[in-house]
Amino acid sequence: MSGFTLPIDNVEYERLREVMTRWHADAIRDSDGTKLDDRILELGLKVYKTYLTTRNDQQWAKDHKEELQQLYMMSEPTIAFHKYLIIDLMKGIFKEQFKVNPKDYHRYWQVIDRTTGKEVGHEKWFYDDEKEVVVLVDAILYHEYTVNFLMYQIWDPTQMYNHLTNDWGDREHEIPYDMRHPLTNSHIKGYLNEWLSEHPEVDVVRFTTFFYHFTLIYNEMKKEKFVDWFGYSSTLSHEAIQAFEKAKGYPLKAEYVVDEGYFNNPFRIPTKEFLDFLDFQSEFVCREAKVLVDMTHDHKKEAMMFLGDNWIGTEPYGKYFEAIGIDSVVGSVGNGTTLRMISDIPGVKYTEGRFLPYFFPDVFCEEGDPVTEAKENWIQGRRAIMQSSLDRIGYGGYLSLALQFPEFVDVVERISNEFHTFHEMVQGTKGYKAPFKVAILNCFGKLRSWQTNQVAHALWYKEIYSYVGVLEALSGMTFDVEFINFEDIKQNGISEEIGIMINSGDAMTAWSGGKNWLDETVITTIREWVYNGGGFIGIGEPTAIQHQGKYFQLFDVLGVDKDITYGLSYRKYHELTKEHFILEDIKTEIDFGRGMRGVFKKGEHTTILAMDQNDILLSVNEYGRGRGVYIAGLPYSAQNARLLQRAIYYAAHQESELMTYYVDSCEVECTYFPEVKKLAVYNNSFEVQEAQIYVRGEVKHRVTLNEMDLIWLDVE
Amino acid sequence: MSGFTLPIDNVEYERLREVMTRWHADAIRDSDGTKLDDRILELGLKVYKTYLTTRNDQQWAKDHKEELQQLYMMSEPTIAFHKYLIIDLMKGIFKEQFKVNPKDYHRYWQVIDRTTGKEVGHEKWFYDDEKEVVVLVDAILYHEYTVNFLMYQIWDPTQMYNHLTNDWGDREHEIPYDMRHPLTNSHIKGYLNEWLSEHPEVDVVRFTTFFYHFTLIYNEMKKEKFVDWFGYSSTLSHEAIQAFEKAKGYPLKAEYVVDEGYFNNPFRIPTKEFLDFLDFQSEFVCREAKVLVDMTHDHKKEAMMFLGDNWIGTEPYGKYFEAIGIDSVVGSVGNGTTLRMISDIPGVKYTEGRFLPYFFPDVFCEEGDPVTEAKENWIQGRRAIMQSSLDRIGYGGYLSLALQFPEFVDVVERISNEFHTFHEMVQGTKGYKAPFKVAILNCFGKLRSWQTNQVAHALWYKEIYSYVGVLEALSGMTFDVEFINFEDIKQNGISEEIGIMINSGDAMTAWSGGKNWLDETVITTIREWVYNGGGFIGIGEPTAIQHQGKYFQLFDVLGVDKDITYGLSYRKYHELTKEHFILEDIKTEIDFGRGMRGVFKKGEHTTILAMDQNDILLSVNEYGRGRGVYIAGLPYSAQNARLLQRAIYYAAHQESELMTYYVDSCEVECTYFPEVKKLAVYNNSFEVQEAQIYVRGEVKHRVTLNEMDLIWLDVE
Repeated sequence: MSGFTLPIDNVEYERLREVMTRWHADAIRDSDGTKLDDRILELGLKVYKTYLTTRNDQQWAKDHKEELQQLYMMSEPTIAFHKYLIIDLMKGIFKEQFKVNPKDYHRYWQVIDRTTGKEVGHEKWFYDDEKEVVVLVDAILYHEYTVNFLMYQIWDPTQMYNHLTNDWGDREHEIPYDMRHPLTNSHIKGYLNEWLSEHPEVDVVRFTTFFYHFTLIYNEMKKEKFVDWFGYSSTLSHEAIQAFEKAKGYPLKAEYVVDEGYFNNPFRIPTKEFLDFLDFQSEFVCREAKVLVDMTHDHKKEAMMFLGDNWIGTEPYGKYFEAIGIDSVVGSVGNGTTLRMISDIPGVKYTEGRFLPYFFPDVFCEEGDPVTEAKENWIQGRRAIMQSSLDRIGYGGYLSLALQFPEFVDVVERISNEFHTFHEMVQGTKGYKAPFKVAILNCFGKLRSWQTNQVAHALWYKEIYSYVGVLEALSGMTFDVEFINFEDIKQNGISEEIGIMINSGDAMTAWSGGKNWLDETVITTIREWVYNGGGFIGIGEPTAIQHQGKYFQLFDVLGVDKDITYGLSYRKYHELTKEHFILEDIKTEIDFGRGMRGVFKKGEHTTILAMDQNDILLSVNEYGRGRGVYIAGLPYSAQNARLLQRAIYYAAHQESELMTYYVDSCEVECTYFPEVKKLAVYNNSFEVQEAQIYVRGEVKHRVTLNEMDLIWLDVE
Repeated sequence: MSGFTLPIDNVEYERLREVMTRWHADAIRDSDGTKLDDRILELGLKVYKTYLTTRNDQQWAKDHKEELQQLYMMSEPTIAFHKYLIIDLMKGIFKEQFKVNPKDYHRYWQVIDRTTGKEVGHEKWFYDDEKEVVVLVDAILYHEYTVNFLMYQIWDPTQMYNHLTNDWGDREHEIPYDMRHPLTNSHIKGYLNEWLSEHPEVDVVRFTTFFYHFTLIYNEMKKEKFVDWFGYSSTLSHEAIQAFEKAKGYPLKAEYVVDEGYFNNPFRIPTKEFLDFLDFQSEFVCREAKVLVDMTHDHKKEAMMFLGDNWIGTEPYGKYFEAIGIDSVVGSVGNGTTLRMISDIPGVKYTEGRFLPYFFPDVFCEEGDPVTEAKENWIQGRRAIMQSSLDRIGYGGYLSLALQFPEFVDVVERISNEFHTFHEMVQGTKGYKAPFKVAILNCFGKLRSWQTNQVAHALWYKEIYSYVGVLEALSGMTFDVEFINFEDIKQNGISEEIGIMINSGDAMTAWSGGKNWLDETVITTIREWVYNGGGFIGIGEPTAIQHQGKYFQLFDVLGVDKDITYGLSYRKYHELTKEHFILEDIKTEIDFGRGMRGVFKKGEHTTILAMDQNDILLSVNEYGRGRGVYIAGLPYSAQNARLLQRAIYYAAHQESELMTYYVDSCEVECTYFPEVKKLAVYNNSFEVQEAQIYVRGEVKHRVTLNEMDLIWLDVE
């Protein structure tokens, strides 16, 4: 099965037919306000329609202002220069987006002394609704105070973003209402039911999405203040808070959500309370989503979920998702990682990737280069498809705009052809995978599969790109990748299938693990596993927390530790080894991204492969029958992907397996589909590449590939 | 008073006389093994003689092997792959330097499970003296263990260093004995008494030094393993351990000294137990040193102390030092900072600085450049002398060697002339100082005056140079500098004299302060002080410890915080301000050394003056009537010194005072001596400098100075 979804707007019928044929389109999706030509509906295509669950009835929103969605917010930190302290709640917050909800404030809000971390008693503060300020009447001088308070969300973040970005002027602000309220809950269901009846032409309801938006807060300058694509702050209500206590047996304090102002973003080591809250909301969202999906099925339509915007609580890798019974998931493909985040989702009938660029005027203009953007996006996505395919692809935006760029139309034709051919070739079979699994270890495990070290969807941040590159490399590599957390290890040990464990991230983040590395069971289980043959790869600040004379708690496995100046008195004698299995494909200087300072050799079996100013950037270690590898950072590049591939085979003591299916140029990769005996070989670069193809250790083919070429070889 | 001490060896008498005259020498010091010509003794010069208190009677050392000096050492971390675990104590340790002392090992040693931090019971381990291993009979699998044990020091570290560096072959290894033992104690005293009687020609006994060497441990490759110029690890003995318990009321555990293997080096936030131990040993050293000094005085000789080698426990800025009654301190001048460390010592009659280079063949050879080294050293020292003068200067090494370099002889003549003239000009008066004090705040305060952020004496480390530069700049600036600690603030608040407080160092070190920044009194006292007009300058990671939503606990005072990725979800809008009082003398790009990542604006009154990739490197903040300044790092350079000077005047709200005595070129500085009405103007560079001299805000002189020129102007 392979399909292509075409966004359509007011394009002339004949032109539309032509491009549909060239792009293998079998489904259409209308943009806002487009009226579909009847002739199109007669073509037998699948028709998608976007459904905005919590904001498509704005009259409801206006009539039920106490049932709008809410956030727990933290006021700006305020220092008490006087005993009588006034805290302006809305300072720094966009007043068109939010409005304070003062109801029962002493019950739902908290004033916290951030100097001590203690909550301030109710008798010491009150709220002045007129001025939107909290007043402390007996503050401790020179202490810092903040208020955790509830705000109504009076503008849907996605609509607001589009509104402000596209200058929509006086177009109405859409306000989201909250499924948690019984009235709104039944209204949402009734409204959908009616809508389903009124839209017989729709085959696929594209839910965008269910009930809660990820956290997106604007400031008083109408600019982004806070964004967390994984954030649960916008799921609050008095009803939810009360229901939480019933479900979990203890009250939900505002601080559990506010989290010192960090709002439990995924870099924070998750607290038990936050995980409980996530579980609680996820259970609710999935349970209620199932009702909508069932209704959709009752109307003989498919239910598709958009992985974005209001996706909070669906948690496709969480324990409630499959029960929703959704037919498919569609998401934006920012790179290989986000593609895998979609394509690996368990329990759906099919998945669809919306590729870049959007057909929007910012790219489809004289200064823009939609052709190159499309190629780059496809190259990144394609290597991930080889490992775990999408069933459908598509684009978004205004087709009429894209059609003005004939070269672009050609490129998409080529992409769609490749995608179509891929499915024809592999016939639904899976590619060859190395004979061991690669496990990514962090605080979240499976829940955040293909979502580690991310802030906003596929956005580049200087603080994360050295880690994001690891996942991006893996997204297109012939390894089974599994995401595990510390609880998994404590409860179940390490599965026999796992050959490699990767711990990658900054110290004291959920990705590295922080205090989890003080857990004896975690430490001893991993040590024993490596000692008996496992391979442990640490990237950045793996296993890091200062304790008992070391910073990397698995310094012995890694063969290195990091010094945060406590060890400056120790001299570090570092010798570089220039030739090594891991380095054999390295042609240019290795890019370690932000690199790492203070990493030094600790132990006798460490071999140093790269250094900067005597600080180790790359090293390997022998540990019993296992191995450890340390890498300072690994932004995505063809060479770095190869380095990681070699590091994995090396750490797994499976060097001989590297060349089972292998290309000697870093820019070219291959994937073998044993059941159909086809080998895909693809050039990930914009240059011509000459390459030798190895099959089971021997050169079997010599090929020359033009830019981004994909070829299929018959291989026994 | 000004003097010059000449090291002499076998130099021909007439030649010696000539150089003595040219260099203003009034004292001589013989090198090892030199026999002084009688005619020299008749010249009426002061004669210095080095006295090695704890190792000048090697027969005593050989006869009293149980009274040798000892160290607490930590074995290398060892993982228990089996229940029966063998830990090789001497692994990685130079066996010619140390020998295990197994006596009463169960009482004085500890085996520690470094996975849990818990001590292992005596019943679970024993020591095998023959193999020098500790055996654990019931180790927990995959836990990490170390042994804290005592070793005799069987080679004096300084003699060992010289021995190995100069390839002294089979020359006897000198072994230090321990003043703590009653027999050795009285022997040391008796031996000195005899020596004093036998050396009537000696005027000044140069103690090198008293009883304990700083920590210097070599590894099995005969190379440096661990060096801590401030280390107290080498002051141990059963007797000391017992005496500690009597003095302090609780037993001294080995771990208090071993400190997870970091041995309480000064980057560690000192524990109460370590401070107690330091106090305990310092009291002992000073008490016993006083006896030796008294004896010296009884023989009508002066007692001089060398600040280095065996200086541990003397603590010139500690509370026991002055009671020793030492006449003078001599030390090596590595730069301005180390000069101030000598010249600021309270309670001595005079101080002497030994300048670089040593007259040793490593520099006085064809490849060497002793002339430039001498000039650079003098330029760095001279600006510090202007603020707090040495009384004497001198050199070390083999004079005969130096005399082979006539240009070098010329340079020293110039230096000595400048030093001589300085004292003639200032007549013992002090230079003008700004009308407020600069306080350096860290965990040690006064005790480590001019000793902050150092590992080994004046050595460059990439991890510290961005902080060391701050002190180096201050060493030659017209500010009274005071070193304070957190206890000072808690006990006494902030003195009225202090106008500026500087907190400078890496997070979680003794220099930044770590957990001290969680102390409410510290936080509120400083906030109140700045709010009422104080100036707070933070460099690197000031006030840093992650707590309640921030990393810099005084983010409000500084106007910036640092994000360790918990705040990636917050967008940082940073605008650069290019013109500012602080930047007015900046001509080339500012060198922030290692810089700093993740520093962002937090508050409304922050002005950003420098950034890198949107991370703040330099900023200022208004805070009530006071100000905060943040600087990422500040290696020493003429421009950076000026930047700091301006930052100080700015933060103190005393911009108008900057030009009281001021030179408009960064490379040229001036110091005014009001009592004698003389203004010293000196070129710190090797280039010709044109400069305008400001007096009380107005240009009073225009001068052209050749390389390193120093001129004196009469200024009313």
